[in-house]
Amino acid sequence: MRLGWIAAALSVAWAGLAHAYDVKEIGSYFIGGHMQTLTGLPEETVYFYQGAPPTAYNPNGDVHTGQMYVHYVRLQPPRAAVPIILVHGGGLSGTGWESTPDGRPGWQQFFLQAGFDVVVPDQVERGRSNWSRWPQIFTSAPLFRTAQEGWTLFRIGPTYASDPAARVAEPNTQFPVGGYDNFVGSFNARWTTTDAVAQAAFDQMIDKECPCILVAHSAGSGFAVRAALRAPDKILALVGLEPSAAPDPASIDMARLKAIPMLFVWGDHLDDFPAWKKIVVNPYKFQDGQAAQGRMDVVHLPERGITGNTHMMMMDRNSDQVAGVVRDWLAERKLVQ
Amino acid sequence: MRLGWIAAALSVAWAGLAHAYDVKEIGSYFIGGHMQTLTGLPEETVYFYQGAPPTAYNPNGDVHTGQMYVHYVRLQPPRAAVPIILVHGGGLSGTGWESTPDGRPGWQQFFLQAGFDVVVPDQVERGRSNWSRWPQIFTSAPLFRTAQEGWTLFRIGPTYASDPAARVAEPNTQFPVGGYDNFVGSFNARWTTTDAVAQAAFDQMIDKECPCILVAHSAGSGFAVRAALRAPDKILALVGLEPSAAPDPASIDMARLKAIPMLFVWGDHLDDFPAWKKIVVNPYKFQDGQAAQGRMDVVHLPERGITGNTHMMMMDRNSDQVAGVVRDWLAERKLVQ
Repeated sequence: MRLGWIAAALSVAWAGLAHAYDVKEIGSYFIGGHMQTLTGLPEETVYFYQGAPPTAYNPNGDVHTGQMYVHYVRLQPPRAAVPIILVHGGGLSGTGWESTPDGRPGWQQFFLQAGFDVVVPDQVERGRSNWSRWPQIFTSAPLFRTAQEGWTLFRIGPTYASDPAARVAEPNTQFPVGGYDNFVGSFNARWTTTDAVAQAAFDQMIDKECPCILVAHSAGSGFAVRAALRAPDKILALVGLEPSAAPDPASIDMARLKAIPMLFVWGDHLDDFPAWKKIVVNPYKFQDGQAAQGRMDVVHLPERGITGNTHMMMMDRNSDQVAGVVRDWLAERKLVQ
Repeated sequence: MRLGWIAAALSVAWAGLAHAYDVKEIGSYFIGGHMQTLTGLPEETVYFYQGAPPTAYNPNGDVHTGQMYVHYVRLQPPRAAVPIILVHGGGLSGTGWESTPDGRPGWQQFFLQAGFDVVVPDQVERGRSNWSRWPQIFTSAPLFRTAQEGWTLFRIGPTYASDPAARVAEPNTQFPVGGYDNFVGSFNARWTTTDAVAQAAFDQMIDKECPCILVAHSAGSGFAVRAALRAPDKILALVGLEPSAAPDPASIDMARLKAIPMLFVWGDHLDDFPAWKKIVVNPYKFQDGQAAQGRMDVVHLPERGITGNTHMMMMDRNSDQVAGVVRDWLAERKLVQ
């Protein structure tokens, strides 16, 4: 009886400890970009915060632009051979890897527990990377995604409504719909004219962190594929989660990628949303091209009996199950013990 | 001989392990804010990324505003009684707690190693909290700090120049001047009309995370003091690092703060920069008011022989030494073992 009690206590302690991991360092850095001098802007008098004294504000001078924020957690020691870099999609920042909209641990935590050093950048202009004023530096105005657009574009369901009770989701959706408004708070302003500067900073991150594994979601796949084309020897594996920006292989030198094992993962309801018929065209051509090189695995989750996943599979209620698909594929390739 | 070798190996292993810590969870959440409906904005056709198909872009609809991003690292187990919340200053985000501009570990890492759960928010509108379009939601235009302003306002030295070699720093400055341009990349756009919504989200974070210790830098001290006035029982200690926004005690009910032990830390060269003669007026009155309640400790670092510290003491070359002053003060108050 007493032994049984001790065993139960140890079991509880173990269940807790099994989730913990030894961390060597948590930190971040900015990489890329350059200083730029602004001139000719009007001066003002401002109050920087409640109760602050009046301050002369001169916006002219040197500012930094084009830098990328990169967050990292380094384990002591990692069980994986190389770090995993989690690359977010368009209109988002790295926050979507840290937690789910209903407050569960995100893929960052999953892959830390799986023994990987985890690197999470915010694309240039997004999140902590900071944006630059326009039209003085960025040449276009930003775009803001609405809750309406996200609901259907991410295939949560056919009909959004401001009233949460009136929204229509797919009956089997895995998205935690109660957290949708919270998720909308993570939407980032985006520019459509910053790809080159964003890629330059991304490539500098690759040079610093890799060899590595790239896991890229949605529009983030464009940065990942271009990085792989530039430095194929540094990318030990490339995982695309609904990699909407994977390019038409006719537009690139696919042969440069032939040594890189790739996994593309697709969710549910791809045929139910007209926009997706267009979105998948290039990525499907890309994966056919990589398959012809013998280095492509494609998982349509419903074909494995995993149904209801949205475009935001790292936030879906079964996010750990989907992460497990990726981890198992990496383990089969001996990239983690 | 063999035992000596083993001892040496163990010592090396211990030196490494001494820096590691057991983490239960790393994650983040958004808190506060609300949905807002935009109408009457023009529709456009846009290309969301390089190679993307043309997409009809309708900016009208529901967006989320006023949310705050909160990052946390929870230890297993913490040695501190309560979490420590690191509150950044004006025109910055939480990144300045994560690392220094010359790539050393930041105060987040220091306090994790010291046994604290560490919480790092980005103020509303900054960093990963995301900003909202103006004039539709935020009522004013943003301000951008220049490298010129930062160099003198943060008391790095008397003269900024675009050419790093031509910049003049204080001879004894602790700021890692070689990392200054990198630091400028962490500057955030700021609005002067968002204090109320930012405080509301900050207070929600307090309700979720506290009882806690608040460490607030510069303008962040305004949020911290207002949070303490609202919920004094939840703040076990308040540390102000050059807390420029600490208010005139005549403008608040100081008696509500009389149970909260406070430490204010000031750097070097306060008398050498005219702007600072104005900035310190209210904070000095505030600390006199709290001293009259018997709960105030003030450290002017030069009086302890720690010289050359700037307004950015958590980034200065002796950042760990300054953090140690804070940790020791907290340990004296039995807030960490």
